[in-house]
Amino acid sequence: MGPGEGATPEQNEMAYELGAAIAKEGWTVLTGGREFGVMEAAMKGATDHKGLTIGVLPGDSLQGASEYAQIKIITGMGSARNNINVLSSHVIVVLGMAAGTASEVSLAIKANKKVIFLCQDELTISFFKSVGTYRVSVVSTIKEAIDIMKDYVGMKQIR
Amino acid sequence: MGPGEGATPEQNEMAYELGAAIAKEGWTVLTGGREFGVMEAAMKGATDHKGLTIGVLPGDSLQGASEYAQIKIITGMGSARNNINVLSSHVIVVLGMAAGTASEVSLAIKANKKVIFLCQDELTISFFKSVGTYRVSVVSTIKEAIDIMKDYVGMKQIR
Amino acid sequence: MGPGEGATPEQNEMAYELGAAIAKEGWTVLTGGREFGVMEAAMKGATDHKGLTIGVLPGDSLQGASEYAQIKIITGMGSARNNINVLSSHVIVVLGMAAGTASEVSLAIKANKKVIFLCQDELTISFFKSVGTYRVSVVSTIKEAIDIMKDYVGMKQIR
Amino acid sequence: MGPGEGATPEQNEMAYELGAAIAKEGWTVLTGGREFGVMEAAMKGATDHKGLTIGVLPGDSLQGASEYAQIKIITGMGSARNNINVLSSHVIVVLGMAAGTASEVSLAIKANKKVIFLCQDELTISFFKSVGTYRVSVVSTIKEAIDIMKDYVGMKQIR
Repeated sequence: MGPGEGATPEQNEMAYELGAAIAKEGWTVLTGGREFGVMEAAMKGATDHKGLTIGVLPGDSLQGASEYAQIKIITGMGSARNNINVLSSHVIVVLGMAAGTASEVSLAIKANKKVIFLCQDELTISFFKSVGTYRVSVVSTIKEAIDIMKDYVGMKQIR
Repeated sequence: MGPGEGATPEQNEMAYELGAAIAKEGWTVLTGGREFGVMEAAMKGATDHKGLTIGVLPGDSLQGASEYAQIKIITGMGSARNNINVLSSHVIVVLGMAAGTASEVSLAIKANKKVIFLCQDELTISFFKSVGTYRVSVVSTIKEAIDIMKDYVGMKQIR
Repeated sequence: MGPGEGATPEQNEMAYELGAAIAKEGWTVLTGGREFGVMEAAMKGATDHKGLTIGVLPGDSLQGASEYAQIKIITGMGSARNNINVLSSHVIVVLGMAAGTASEVSLAIKANKKVIFLCQDELTISFFKSVGTYRVSVVSTIKEAIDIMKDYVGMKQIR
Repeated sequence: MGPGEGATPEQNEMAYELGAAIAKEGWTVLTGGREFGVMEAAMKGATDHKGLTIGVLPGDSLQGASEYAQIKIITGMGSARNNINVLSSHVIVVLGMAAGTASEVSLAIKANKKVIFLCQDELTISFFKSVGTYRVSVVSTIKEAIDIMKDYVGMKQIR
């Protein structure tokens, strides 16, 4: 999860690498499915490395969908689809921050989901920790994020 | 799309064969994702024939999900998820009838989606034709359903 | 519940009278909230008789909302909002038929809600009875509809 | 908008006063509709002062609904209903903070809604300002909140 149009080039590059790393583990990348920002970059990284990608789209058609969303779920429910993104994910990795991303982190904490903050600033980390996030991990590299996911996946024995 | 718990053995068998036939075309099966009825049978048929399956679940957890739903979308929105099933599908094949199924057919017609009625009775066909369904096709074999989908997919140039 | 743009003048007139009759009982009219058809007519009838009206809108803004929807719930979720209409109603009265309306009746039956068919044709009645609708009542006048609602409200002790 | 079970007595008292003040202006209080916390307190304050209250509930029945939610919208969609709360409100007043509340503030900013932070701590204010919230106002009394709403309502000419 991360910003769309407002993502920086560095965030997009890191999202691409994260998508690639997730694909190499044999896992699936699920994002908001749109054709820009962290969503598209992560799905492109996974697609380029033979990974599976799912885009859960806000609109009621394929308009605006990223070509790297191999599976496109069309919700027609706008930002309310953010809750589906969160519920459908085993682990949420958060890269960059924006209003939509903040709603996803909040909904993830509400749903008691595992959240990994990748390269987040102190303000973001402090705020969400204050909201009650004992399941939030803070990391600064993709390798650390993958390692935490591996541990977590092992614990949960996800098929 | 079709009944869950109320599906007859014949409907489940046909759903299995339909899922298998869809998989052989290289297409994806999307259903309501639950662990019984036409949903599960179609996904099992596809899975047994190396096809990809998506289950769009009504609950807010994996509880009640079919093991044949390879990709599980957790919506947490009950029957309102029927609209997501419809919007996310290129073509809706309807096998058997129940309240939830009727809502999906209605929403599909509302969304101007292509609908194929497989082995439906006259009453169902007449009712939905009266609702305004020039995009509804009526067939009695899986082969006919697949042929219509092939034509339709060709027309739409779906990737 | 009933058709929007496709409603006949007779249906709109009857919807107006139904809204008026509901208001006279001190009950609330809830509809899909749009600015035409049975939705608007029922809310206008209620408003003109000092009743309260709620419109549960499909869009993500007030655009297209009827001025007779005194309370406007903006869902931003398109036809998936039909499930909210159904869940939020004590009793569903169905006047006229269209794809959206058929989805509401189906969802109401699925949710085990009380449904009253007002002036429906045989085909519609037969179809929904076949879907399993022991809670569906069929009436031909507004007075009968109100009487059934009175009985039902009494039974449920709705505040 | 504010915390449910985790609300402090002070927050509940202030929510009650806020609901009362909104009712005195002739406006409507819309909350998440549950039977505790800031939601219930604000609706009780409004109800006690002859105001109208709407509760947009997460569940699929009346279970857990506050008796002070005069109008109960049953969404059956869990936390995804937070987006409906936000879209349906003219102005969002935020009192206290929790995961669900944070998702509502985020969705409000995403939807470009007017947000008033009442008695929020520096961390919360700083975080949401960093997310991009030029439409967020920060106040420390109910009177200030009401004054901002009056100005805003005047600007928007809300009926």
